[in-house]
Amino acid sequence: MNRTVPQPVRANLADGREILFFSSGVPTVPGVDYRDLPHRAADSPTRLRFDRQIGDWVIVAPARQQRTYHPPREMCPLCPDPDGRSSEIPAADYEVAVIENRFPALSTARVGSGFGLPQVPGFETEAMGYGRCEVVCFTSDHDGSFGALTPTRARLVLDVWAQRTADLLARDGIAEVYCFENRGEEIGVTLAHPHGQIYGYPRRTRRTATMLARAAEHRNSKGGSLFEDIVAHELRSGERIVARTEHATAFVPFAARWPAEVHVYPNRHVHNLTELTDREADDLASVYLRVLRGYDALYGSPLPYIASWHQYRSGTDGSVDGEQEGYLHAELFSIRRSADKLKYLAGSESGRDAFVTDQLPEDVARDLRAVMA
Amino acid sequence: MNRTVPQPVRANLADGREILFFSSGVPTVPGVDYRDLPHRAADSPTRLRFDRQIGDWVIVAPARQQRTYHPPREMCPLCPDPDGRSSEIPAADYEVAVIENRFPALSTARVGSGFGLPQVPGFETEAMGYGRCEVVCFTSDHDGSFGALTPTRARLVLDVWAQRTADLLARDGIAEVYCFENRGEEIGVTLAHPHGQIYGYPRRTRRTATMLARAAEHRNSKGGSLFEDIVAHELRSGERIVARTEHATAFVPFAARWPAEVHVYPNRHVHNLTELTDREADDLASVYLRVLRGYDALYGSPLPYIASWHQYRSGTDGSVDGEQEGYLHAELFSIRRSADKLKYLAGSESGRDAFVTDQLPEDVARDLRAVMA
Repeated sequence: MNRTVPQPVRANLADGREILFFSSGVPTVPGVDYRDLPHRAADSPTRLRFDRQIGDWVIVAPARQQRTYHPPREMCPLCPDPDGRSSEIPAADYEVAVIENRFPALSTARVGSGFGLPQVPGFETEAMGYGRCEVVCFTSDHDGSFGALTPTRARLVLDVWAQRTADLLARDGIAEVYCFENRGEEIGVTLAHPHGQIYGYPRRTRRTATMLARAAEHRNSKGGSLFEDIVAHELRSGERIVARTEHATAFVPFAARWPAEVHVYPNRHVHNLTELTDREADDLASVYLRVLRGYDALYGSPLPYIASWHQYRSGTDGSVDGEQEGYLHAELFSIRRSADKLKYLAGSESGRDAFVTDQLPEDVARDLRAVMA
Repeated sequence: MNRTVPQPVRANLADGREILFFSSGVPTVPGVDYRDLPHRAADSPTRLRFDRQIGDWVIVAPARQQRTYHPPREMCPLCPDPDGRSSEIPAADYEVAVIENRFPALSTARVGSGFGLPQVPGFETEAMGYGRCEVVCFTSDHDGSFGALTPTRARLVLDVWAQRTADLLARDGIAEVYCFENRGEEIGVTLAHPHGQIYGYPRRTRRTATMLARAAEHRNSKGGSLFEDIVAHELRSGERIVARTEHATAFVPFAARWPAEVHVYPNRHVHNLTELTDREADDLASVYLRVLRGYDALYGSPLPYIASWHQYRSGTDGSVDGEQEGYLHAELFSIRRSADKLKYLAGSESGRDAFVTDQLPEDVARDLRAVMA
């Protein structure tokens, strides 16, 4: 890593799951989780099923039907709980806490005979749902939001993502690490306490595979980096740029699919968060914060959004199958298309992957620039 | 065509758009549309933009922000209007009516210099939003639903889709014809009157391209038809079959992505609805109706769903680039994952195309069989 990243204080919850506490100052002292939870080894396993029509894996996780659903505030599982009796986080307070998801789509708990996926899937090909699902609590403030974090805290979260990325990518059987945040009930969030998630997938996701294939094609035909060329083009054009600093650039993409879609890139081509220098990480965190604050200013109310980080392995020697073309960036987007209307993925999008957007990207960039500090 | 398909009575609306009336008996007599609408040539044009990251086109249609949004019942634009003053359908009554969409994502109205898409897209590559968007009204009954149609009417709708498919595929510049229905406010439907839509796309959609590529791969490696093999496998296995008749089969796919996902195939491999015989069309319509009725019986309330028809060109000589592998079928799915919860496409699905399902497909098939007549 190009900078020092805080290492966590580790503890275990009552059912054996890991909890990690990160702090920028005095380390958090974990309490004891006294809850009477069945050991996680009793979890129903999840599985991957191969879809022959699309050539991709679907995660089947029936136990997630039972996951916590809009609990009352006093039963918030992500608030700090000094007594260790009611929440997932047995501590008097915390800065950033990471927990293995209690209702995981993917888990390392049952490795069994291995985590490899069949190379030549046939009919009814299943594999164990190996992987890792983590919940990242950005703040102990139940009523906070990522956009309301201080720059120091936002930077700490970036470093937590970097630490988790390095940790998970180093494990056998993890092919891709995905840090993301879903924010807002409108987008299906069932816990009000501000939090994000990390998925360690056992195979490259379809979207990542598509993007890397496009980048390889671009390299072959044009001789350059697709993502460097995209950023350079947006800078030349300028009309969709919403923020530009010494080390980071944010823009509405030319062919945005989603309302308020913004992509945030570090100015230097790195593969993932661990490769950033201190100053780059500070700058990226600050531009990211500005975009999120702009989001909430757009309609004068919290904007539901998905923030999706794209990261790749660091290898530049071709040993990681095309990932050297990958360029760290965040893609943020909303499902709110106007002050009082949502964008739904209906027939064209869900049935055909053919997106129809109601907004001209240049107009979105103009509206965002007008409200961004 | 292998059967006689009703031909429409054609008329024009006040702004120049086409309206087509289909009937199984006495032809509908169109009235006059007296509304004071600006001529459609004044529509803001829509455009396609090429997304270099994904290698696909996005439809940008800002005028759709103004589309009709939950009008009060007495202003329903899809109810018959004998006076021709308030709705889109100037007629005393109708069986099935097809209208060019007033707020189209794609339109044939402005052909301009041509409808070809650039073969080698660069940065900021745009094309005109050429194509066709139609609204299909299944019934004049505002409170009806597709599932409540008589078998005769459902069959008429299938024939209307066939007629529209043949008509649109015969036009230059239309690459794919997509018949679908979005049902339910939860899925974003903004007009309560039961209706479906047809999109004539100027290029093959990403999902169709993916499926045809998979089928070509299967042909090369296994020597058979992917889709025939999938249906045959489901019949052998049996545990996900929800309906089977002389000419049609319905099953929950092995790697279902969506709640209540059901695929309905005719038993004979045809490419599109125009190739069905009379008996096949009757049988397919009746199985389709049974699935929709099962949907509404699942939780005792109208299930929000998307019904998505997959059709291909008829050519079997290879002249239509892989489409000879295509197999007509409907894919139906919901966003309701339990009686009181919706499935949202959040971080993993929207950010990575990686689907997580909460339901085991075999359980879904069992639940559907239990409520299907």
